[in-house]
Amino acid sequence: ELLQLLEEVHHADIAEIISDLDLDEATYIIKLLDSTQTSEALMELEEDVRERILDNLSAKEIAEELENMDTDDAADIIAELSEERKQEVIGEIIDEEHAEHIVELLRYDENSAGGLMAKELVKVNENWSVTGCMTEMRAQAENVTRVHSIYVVDDKGKLKGRLSLKDLLTAPSKANISDIYIPKVDYVNVHTKGDEVARIMQKYDLEAIPVVDEMGRLVGRVTIDDIVDFIKDEAEKDYQMAAGISEDVEADDSILRLTRARLPWLILALLGGFVSVTVLGTFDAAMQEHAALFFFVPLIAAMAGNVGVQSSAIILQGLANQSLSGSLWNRLVKEILLSLLNGAALALLLIVGGIFLLGFDFWFGMTVGISLISVIVIASLIGTFVPIILDKFGIDPAMATGPFITTSNDIFGILIYFTIAKVILGF
Amino acid sequence: ELLQLLEEVHHADIAEIISDLDLDEATYIIKLLDSTQTSEALMELEEDVRERILDNLSAKEIAEELENMDTDDAADIIAELSEERKQEVIGEIIDEEHAEHIVELLRYDENSAGGLMAKELVKVNENWSVTGCMTEMRAQAENVTRVHSIYVVDDKGKLKGRLSLKDLLTAPSKANISDIYIPKVDYVNVHTKGDEVARIMQKYDLEAIPVVDEMGRLVGRVTIDDIVDFIKDEAEKDYQMAAGISEDVEADDSILRLTRARLPWLILALLGGFVSVTVLGTFDAAMQEHAALFFFVPLIAAMAGNVGVQSSAIILQGLANQSLSGSLWNRLVKEILLSLLNGAALALLLIVGGIFLLGFDFWFGMTVGISLISVIVIASLIGTFVPIILDKFGIDPAMATGPFITTSNDIFGILIYFTIAKVILGF
Ligand SMILES: [Mg+2]
Ligand SMILES: [Mg+2]
Ligand SMILES: [Mg+2]
Ligand SMILES: [Mg+2]
Ligand SMILES: [Mg+2]
Ligand SMILES: [Mg+2]
Ligand SMILES: [Mg+2]
Ligand SMILES: [Mg+2]
Ligand SMILES: [Mg+2]
Ligand SMILES: [Mg+2]
Ligand SMILES: [Mg+2]
Ligand SMILES: [Mg+2]
Ligand SMILES: [Mg+2]
Repeated sequence: ELLQLLEEVHHADIAEIISDLDLDEATYIIKLLDSTQTSEALMELEEDVRERILDNLSAKEIAEELENMDTDDAADIIAELSEERKQEVIGEIIDEEHAEHIVELLRYDENSAGGLMAKELVKVNENWSVTGCMTEMRAQAENVTRVHSIYVVDDKGKLKGRLSLKDLLTAPSKANISDIYIPKVDYVNVHTKGDEVARIMQKYDLEAIPVVDEMGRLVGRVTIDDIVDFIKDEAEKDYQMAAGISEDVEADDSILRLTRARLPWLILALLGGFVSVTVLGTFDAAMQEHAALFFFVPLIAAMAGNVGVQSSAIILQGLANQSLSGSLWNRLVKEILLSLLNGAALALLLIVGGIFLLGFDFWFGMTVGISLISVIVIASLIGTFVPIILDKFGIDPAMATGPFITTSNDIFGILIYFTIAKVILGF
Repeated sequence: ELLQLLEEVHHADIAEIISDLDLDEATYIIKLLDSTQTSEALMELEEDVRERILDNLSAKEIAEELENMDTDDAADIIAELSEERKQEVIGEIIDEEHAEHIVELLRYDENSAGGLMAKELVKVNENWSVTGCMTEMRAQAENVTRVHSIYVVDDKGKLKGRLSLKDLLTAPSKANISDIYIPKVDYVNVHTKGDEVARIMQKYDLEAIPVVDEMGRLVGRVTIDDIVDFIKDEAEKDYQMAAGISEDVEADDSILRLTRARLPWLILALLGGFVSVTVLGTFDAAMQEHAALFFFVPLIAAMAGNVGVQSSAIILQGLANQSLSGSLWNRLVKEILLSLLNGAALALLLIVGGIFLLGFDFWFGMTVGISLISVIVIASLIGTFVPIILDKFGIDPAMATGPFITTSNDIFGILIYFTIAKVILGF
């Protein structure tokens, strides 16, 4: 009766149910249900849950699930297995072509079009007649969940264009495909980066895009459902990266896993903290006469951190969306003007509030105010140009967010603050 | 010749070209090109660029562009106009039904299914015969870029299910739709929130989802291309929110606009800074004997900030994805264990490094170490539970990120640190 109950349920819901069960029950369900239902559910599970379930299945059982998956999903799951297990499982796949396809997909980087594409698609040869095409197409469409587009290739398999189903239906049956196909089609290369594929599909509102190899041959296609997952994943990773979390984790992961994701950046921040302690120590001469200077340290550090994070967030999004225009020089001028404007407004607030409400000495107020402006300008330049420079050197600019920016800006901020104080107040 | 050149160009590319032109040239292009081409390009522009161009067009010219847009896009653009202009433009739309549809869509909140849906779709009545259906369908499909699904409604317009094109083609022509349609279909309500629509479409890999009103009548459908845009926008807004940017801005926006987006959080952080100054001031008695305590203030504040931001990022994603399971009590225990583990590791590093490398006094080392653990535990509890509590009260928990968390954790961190120091060292 459980079987009957679950028959009606969508695989994404089965995945949710399985996630809430313990390992034995989950394995039981996977074995019990037909693999047409469970294979897709397996795909929707969190990687760690899936790993534990697959450990409980034999190579033959895994192969059976893979037979019912699209090649892209099957390849992703096989990629998670150990080398040894991989071979075993592939050996157990009965459908030779399916196995070959999976092996091919395993070659590509997971963040490239090759890693995102599936082999399932409908393609026709430009030399076929319309009649011959219909029969062939119907056979191919059997394996494809959604046809989207019919791609046209030449004898060498090179992508030539696409065919609209309507044109095919209304064409005289003696016509050749070459007479009726549309020679214009968006496509990407197997090595095109995932975010570029996503950008193109979003820009042109595509639901599928064909993928060609180095010789222009049609080798697969990427569908929008996988791009939606990709965009979501990337956004979550970027968000976590900016928060100083170095692995893709969730609130419900184990304490150990969460620690592994969080501790590295915290250790870095602690080391940065040591540097700030040392910097402050060198200015201890100020303690005698200008003790109040030290009370403003967290304020200065906080402002430097906040401004730096704002600047880096804006520039990182610009880099990701390829929407930065203009020269570096223009950007420098703009960032300085912007931060001077913000800094002046904040310094005014600080000086007026400080002198009238907290009763600062005039020069002390000026010291803190001028420091605040300087710190804000420097912090916003660091936030803006560190990501740009990293990007120019081919390093992921997203490294230069959150903890990295706040830690370095703490140090620079304090250094600038006390240097200015020393010049103005003299100690 | 410019006209001929641009004829081949995709509207998304035309939008890019227009963005790089100055206002007069951009307006010229929009007027020059046929609105079948420019209407979609207009849609792809940044809101501020579009606003300036629309200011240069007459109500009649705008109406002409809107005639060629899908209703969802047309409604979004009209929503950006002033009340007065809105009426003028709507009055100039020739196609009565199109105008009615746009007016209907204007009623819905932009972040709801109603605000995301278009009126363009293909629907058939369950009582129709297959033959009658084909004719009617063909007429409807004229206005729809991609059919995706054929929806089935009853005489009252209520959504009953969907129809596969294949079933329709293979059914005997005397059959009724009610004999062949699939009575199971995913749908959302006009008031369903945008992120819920996105979640459902992502979960079930849908390319379109029908939208019903309060009486279950089919009133529109949301397509995946708009959901892709929605997901991207939301992710960018969340990222900016976490970085203390309160409006949706880009690196290329004007200095004034960027200031308006950045200054509010900075002012809040400055006020928080004043509080930290005051807190530090109350502990000035420590300056005489334990001056070094003040050198560790930025380290303690930075650790509190980083831990808080990590915790809040993880919990915010859990809330957004509805993936938090278990009771609040379990979460409390887990967060305390996690932060104790992290805190202990970091404190050990600090104490050992401090005593052996920097030559701390033992009790001083213990003070800083114990403070660090306490501050990390408190900071992670604030980062975890402030978003959860906001969410419970129906406030957007994303408010409790970046600047909010770092500012409050600076203050709590310093307070805890000096209180512990006072207890251990006595001053
Ligand atoms: Mg099974
Ligand atoms: Mg893959
Ligand atoms: Mg788009
Ligand atoms: Mg797929
Ligand atoms: Mg999928
Ligand atoms: Mg990225
Ligand atoms: Mg025009
Ligand atoms: Mg809308
Ligand atoms: Mg999905
Ligand atoms: Mg649309
Ligand atoms: Mg669109
Ligand atoms: Mg949100
Ligand atoms: Mg800080």
